[in-house]
Amino acid sequence: MRFRGKIVITLKPGVFDPQGVTIKSALHSLGYQETDEVKTGKYFEINLDSNNLDTAQKRLEEMCDQLLANPVIENFHFTVEPSDN
Amino acid sequence: MRFRGKIVITLKPGVFDPQGVTIKSALHSLGYQETDEVKTGKYFEINLDSNNLDTAQKRLEEMCDQLLANPVIENFHFTVEPSDN
Repeated sequence: MRFRGKIVITLKPGVFDPQGVTIKSALHSLGYQETDEVKTGKYFEINLDSNNLDTAQKRLEEMCDQLLANPVIENFHFTVEPSDN
Repeated sequence: MRFRGKIVITLKPGVFDPQGVTIKSALHSLGYQETDEVKTGKYFEINLDSNNLDTAQKRLEEMCDQLLANPVIENFHFTVEPSDN
């Protein structure tokens, strides 16, 4: 079966986000003063073959742990669902 | 009122994703051969003050159009909801 994982990786609370700070000031200079905080992160979509949903979930978790997320400074969460393409 | 926008920005179909190709081969070398395709993107969380949900939605759309997404090669979608912090 084919599955699609949608993975969001964000910085852990307390980790400085210079990109977010830069984007916030850029938004202010564009006139969006109402912007209070900007947090940046990474997004991945992964198509994979798997016997079942549990296995797909387990493998995606491992992929995040081993490669996609830096466990020292990043958190990750993901959804996985059957995919038809 | 405070709102939190969660924005996902992905490459448009057909736009080459070298980072995705690199990550796919890295996952294969780590033993995740079942990985068929990897798409990469950006994720932002934006906290903003707004009079109501519609205005917050409209402003976030403008922020994506003007700064966060490159309209030539990227698509964006977002959710926005009231936030208590």
